[in-house]
Amino acid sequence: MGKGLALDIGGTKIAAAIVMESGVLANRQQIATPRGDARQLSAALETVIAPYRHQVDFIAVASTGIISKGLLTALNPANLGGLADFPLQDCIQSIADLPCVLLNDGQAAAWAEYQLLKEQCDNALYVTVSTGVGGGIILNKKLLVGNGGLAGHIGHTLSDPLGPLCGCGRRGCVESVASGTAIGAATHGWAQPLSAAHVFTMAREGHTPAENILHRSATAIAQMLADMRIALDLEQAILGGSVGLAEGYLERVTSLQTDLPDIYRIPVQAAYHQQDSGLLGAALWARAIL
Amino acid sequence: MGKGLALDIGGTKIAAAIVMESGVLANRQQIATPRGDARQLSAALETVIAPYRHQVDFIAVASTGIISKGLLTALNPANLGGLADFPLQDCIQSIADLPCVLLNDGQAAAWAEYQLLKEQCDNALYVTVSTGVGGGIILNKKLLVGNGGLAGHIGHTLSDPLGPLCGCGRRGCVESVASGTAIGAATHGWAQPLSAAHVFTMAREGHTPAENILHRSATAIAQMLADMRIALDLEQAILGGSVGLAEGYLERVTSLQTDLPDIYRIPVQAAYHQQDSGLLGAALWARAIL
Repeated sequence: MGKGLALDIGGTKIAAAIVMESGVLANRQQIATPRGDARQLSAALETVIAPYRHQVDFIAVASTGIISKGLLTALNPANLGGLADFPLQDCIQSIADLPCVLLNDGQAAAWAEYQLLKEQCDNALYVTVSTGVGGGIILNKKLLVGNGGLAGHIGHTLSDPLGPLCGCGRRGCVESVASGTAIGAATHGWAQPLSAAHVFTMAREGHTPAENILHRSATAIAQMLADMRIALDLEQAILGGSVGLAEGYLERVTSLQTDLPDIYRIPVQAAYHQQDSGLLGAALWARAIL
Repeated sequence: MGKGLALDIGGTKIAAAIVMESGVLANRQQIATPRGDARQLSAALETVIAPYRHQVDFIAVASTGIISKGLLTALNPANLGGLADFPLQDCIQSIADLPCVLLNDGQAAAWAEYQLLKEQCDNALYVTVSTGVGGGIILNKKLLVGNGGLAGHIGHTLSDPLGPLCGCGRRGCVESVASGTAIGAATHGWAQPLSAAHVFTMAREGHTPAENILHRSATAIAQMLADMRIALDLEQAILGGSVGLAEGYLERVTSLQTDLPDIYRIPVQAAYHQQDSGLLGAALWARAIL
């Protein structure tokens, strides 16, 4: 299949890189995701794609939101300016007339991370805890894509029926309790509200309320892993994202799992990639299906 | 494959029937599940299987609990006398030396019900709300069996982190809130504790506390369906079991779904079978894989 252009469309940035047949990324660039409407997103994609279009044989896209039948819809209306039914496939092919494959970013990252597992297994879950909480599911060694673009949206399963209202409109989603955004939001009543990164720093310094916020986040992730293990018979979990990879977070999650009966526990390992798993996973997936 | 003997090993009864190539069940019999140890279960299986053994070509078993590598383990120690690693496959083959296939009962019922869907789909969930809450998952038209026998145990996903302690040892499982047992248990503080069936009768007569118990049960099921829809991209749910098929219960669940954002809603239809889906599903599955 030659060289591919991989794009990762996130809530804050659009990253692009050429993915060589070896899997090496080259010419990586990124721009801020426009906060406006569909026209602005089209313009941003034109800016990103144009310089690469004569250097590649296909385009592989990992995007936040729901990807279905070539259309992109934000699950959380606060993301991507609340886009609904944005014709992502048509938009990209009008910029560069190349084979183009679209995938949800959690699914793409899961596919990349699954290839890199230390021990091979059939059934695995990738979870990213970052601004939001996303993921992707591998069952019987295959990426679960789904027909409606929803598969792997484990950040929107229920954590606490009395929890905060999530950006998606449901109350108590894992994302509304565990994400970096939720960690920051939990300090909003404080004299000096903090970012998630600051909450981690204060917890490390022994600040009990900061510690409690991280405990709540990690508990929501540990419980969700238990749910997915018992429902899907998973053998391995992979934890990524800026919160998931923050110092001590994975250890909190695995320690909280020991409060559950044995059958609910699942080995958890840290994601290999800090940020490029979406780009790489989309390219790997495109190579597999094109 | 000719005729098969299907067994359904439940917490209260062991049912057996011959399954004809047409799918018709014949010579159905059942006995009470012994409350004792492994030896008593072996004896009960001998009693059930012996009369059929020269009439069939294979044996297909649907069983409550966790089926893995030919062994049966109760997930809830209160069931099956707390059996662990009972050698079900060896036990059956020592009684009748025939090809034998084992499946979890929720998985078996899901497979039977999936064949009978009014509208074909790729991704579906069967849920039984009865003494406990169980189920089975079909993804990409295939039954999800898993390597450890856990797949489809959706009754043990989290409903409420502050909910009752479940028989499995985890707090707040869907089963601990929604099952017939949980519906009965919710009346334990009443002057006259009731069975689940009586709670339904009183709710129909306008008794508010009974109504609230059913509301709580149906809410747990509606939320779990939303979780599975968003995590797995399911297109159809099928509701069975004595509680699930009780008058008005399915309507409660679908009505509660309308409190959730559109993307979380999933069509729900009533199971076709009242009680024989485990027998039939196990036989269909055995025919498919033997």
